[in-house]
Amino acid sequence: MSQIKTAAILIIGDEVLNGKIQDTNSRFFAKFLFEKGIQLQKILVIGDESQDIIESVRELSSKYDFIVTTGGIGSTHDDITYESIAKAFDLNLELHQETVDKMIKLRKSTSKQLEGDALKAQLRMATLPKGSNVENIYLNEELWVPIVGINKKLYIFPGVPQLFEKMVKGLVEQHLNSRIPEENKFIRFYVSTKLSESEIAPHLTQLQKKAQDDGFEDVKIGSYPHLGLQVNTISILARSKNKDYLRSIVDYSIKNLQGVEIDSKLEDEYSNNVDPLK
Amino acid sequence: MSQIKTAAILIIGDEVLNGKIQDTNSRFFAKFLFEKGIQLQKILVIGDESQDIIESVRELSSKYDFIVTTGGIGSTHDDITYESIAKAFDLNLELHQETVDKMIKLRKSTSKQLEGDALKAQLRMATLPKGSNVENIYLNEELWVPIVGINKKLYIFPGVPQLFEKMVKGLVEQHLNSRIPEENKFIRFYVSTKLSESEIAPHLTQLQKKAQDDGFEDVKIGSYPHLGLQVNTISILARSKNKDYLRSIVDYSIKNLQGVEIDSKLEDEYSNNVDPLK
Repeated sequence: MSQIKTAAILIIGDEVLNGKIQDTNSRFFAKFLFEKGIQLQKILVIGDESQDIIESVRELSSKYDFIVTTGGIGSTHDDITYESIAKAFDLNLELHQETVDKMIKLRKSTSKQLEGDALKAQLRMATLPKGSNVENIYLNEELWVPIVGINKKLYIFPGVPQLFEKMVKGLVEQHLNSRIPEENKFIRFYVSTKLSESEIAPHLTQLQKKAQDDGFEDVKIGSYPHLGLQVNTISILARSKNKDYLRSIVDYSIKNLQGVEIDSKLEDEYSNNVDPLK
Repeated sequence: MSQIKTAAILIIGDEVLNGKIQDTNSRFFAKFLFEKGIQLQKILVIGDESQDIIESVRELSSKYDFIVTTGGIGSTHDDITYESIAKAFDLNLELHQETVDKMIKLRKSTSKQLEGDALKAQLRMATLPKGSNVENIYLNEELWVPIVGINKKLYIFPGVPQLFEKMVKGLVEQHLNSRIPEENKFIRFYVSTKLSESEIAPHLTQLQKKAQDDGFEDVKIGSYPHLGLQVNTISILARSKNKDYLRSIVDYSIKNLQGVEIDSKLEDEYSNNVDPLK
């Protein structure tokens, strides 16, 4: 399977172009890819225009390893992403029964009552490009919207930020991880300490400077105070090829800063704890 | 001079693509153009990459009436917008003496001390595309950065939002206004009244509904309470081709809502007044 090093995002929606809403999907995507070590090279926003969609997905597909589209897969007449992308890759559109079944199951109470034009509108959302190069990926049992993937390269997402964010994370972490070159990925260690930020600050400054001097320019050392818990977490980040160097900083922190190594799950729990001082 | 109906914005900067900063220029531009009646059709974000810049400005120039670029015109080595755009249009780059003079005059205290590489870096910002199809537009005496315009179509702006916003407004309102088709522009009337919002609300709802029914779908009626001043302003907006219909709503408001027509300057003053209840 081809490696993923570069990426682009295509945002489809008149409401961004007329200033009605602020696109936040591209910022999320940019940060998320950066953490994964994938280089986002283009953000493109276009309207709900078939020809624009066709040209854009063709061009982006010819240039980048991983392309996502957001928006234009709802039930109204101006949602034309599926049909435009099908045209771009010479694919047919077909009502996708598995999606219909999941939709009916998960939307039971509402779907049952739909008929006529309303039902037709709802079924637009299950009318998908079809072909041997098309996959329909369902992330979990709570979601009937599939991620439609084409050529293992271009993936079609909804525009709603909460859905988009969750689904992009799921796709990359559950399905694409093995295609991201190991040496490009970031790796991060956490060390927690009861020492105050002021006490650890001079050490961190010195460690950061030493990393630069030693030629490890991707190393980033930071600290996160968890005031309510009386704990500070030191974050130690770099590309995974520099893992050994990072471990030497972890060891230093454990030895000299009363540190205890913790995993990202515990750090998340610290972060999510209600903090009485903030 | 050719009319301006469609537009695109090209944002040049690695820091947006790696998620370090949120681009806000495109949202401002989208809203601003919408108010002017110009259709923004593409937002494109690319990195500080010469080939990407060259291809993007050529393509956008072939498709849209009005293109702006933001970013990449600072003094560091990765600021390559001027030179890349010059290449895209087969233009030479030349130190532009008028810009240097203004720069020295306005940055007197700092510029005087610069020499060697630092001076060279500063002069990059005054090294501009040159040609008979190039204009350097200075908006006022407080600003040495020119807006570089090419083919009366593509305009080069700094990325800093405060500067970008001020300069785009200045360019459009002082220089491009006559090229925006009159019938596409929005027109807005204000009527102020001492009646409370609750008293006028049912009238406004009815007027808005009537406008829809009469086929004037672009008409938008709103109200702005100025609590501290005990005044409500009714805003009545549409494309200027529907001016006569708007005037009939103004007349209705004057007659039935104890209204007085006011201009946008007075409405701005009302809005800027310190409001003790907010």
